[in-house]
Amino acid sequence: MHKARFLLEAAGMRCTEVGRLAADLTDRHNWEPGEAGEGVGIEPRSVLIDASCLTWEGQQFQGKAAIVEKLSSLPFQKIAHSITAQDHQPTPDSCILSMVVGQLKADDDPIMGFHQMFLLKNINDAWVCTNDMFRLALHNFG
Amino acid sequence: MHKARFLLEAAGMRCTEVGRLAADLTDRHNWEPGEAGEGVGIEPRSVLIDASCLTWEGQQFQGKAAIVEKLSSLPFQKIAHSITAQDHQPTPDSCILSMVVGQLKADDDPIMGFHQMFLLKNINDAWVCTNDMFRLALHNFG
Repeated sequence: MHKARFLLEAAGMRCTEVGRLAADLTDRHNWEPGEAGEGVGIEPRSVLIDASCLTWEGQQFQGKAAIVEKLSSLPFQKIAHSITAQDHQPTPDSCILSMVVGQLKADDDPIMGFHQMFLLKNINDAWVCTNDMFRLALHNFG
Repeated sequence: MHKARFLLEAAGMRCTEVGRLAADLTDRHNWEPGEAGEGVGIEPRSVLIDASCLTWEGQQFQGKAAIVEKLSSLPFQKIAHSITAQDHQPTPDSCILSMVVGQLKADDDPIMGFHQMFLLKNINDAWVCTNDMFRLALHNFG
């Protein structure tokens, strides 16, 4: 019954690393061009590959350039995230699947719920984000 | 920019099939032991394998038997789902990743938002669900 947890724990430091990476990915929208790393643990370019997919509120983007362009063009000056729950699972292809839910506040807008999921794959001993989906929680009530 | 969509469409009928399967998976909690197929498009046992993982409100289960046992033990008599948004992406390992958000009503409880994600893998020309995560939308506001 806890085999899934065991499999994740067997990955040792990798699991901790994945938890950190998931939190950093959620927060990466703080990232701004020319201010790489400011206020965020990772630089998004470093975890994206050309096969990476992003679905942002139903809009689809593929590849590092298109995804960075989209994230850079989001219409807010500042954003803060609070993660209230996160789940991680190993996949049969040795990836890690993560689902993160929480709240965000963009500029002076009201606080909104969101959920985001990532598929993380270890390539050449580094985790890359191959798949990313983001939705505001509004859609639960649409 | 629409390469991801293209990749999904290239899978032709498979994509339609995946959309149906995602909807059926969300709804499979209608399934009850001894009433396989009643009120639901699929029988959950048929899409689970021993490597399948379920995370249900933070609780982890692995394998067909453990997952069917958990789903069968959920404490409601009837449940209805309404899907308000769903996203699908291809993965580098030729799987399909789906995120479904919507509302559910269990027995006479108030309507609640939920989000659920699946990783679907084609094995021997049939789609199996290798990964499944479910959360009530409550956690966005926890």
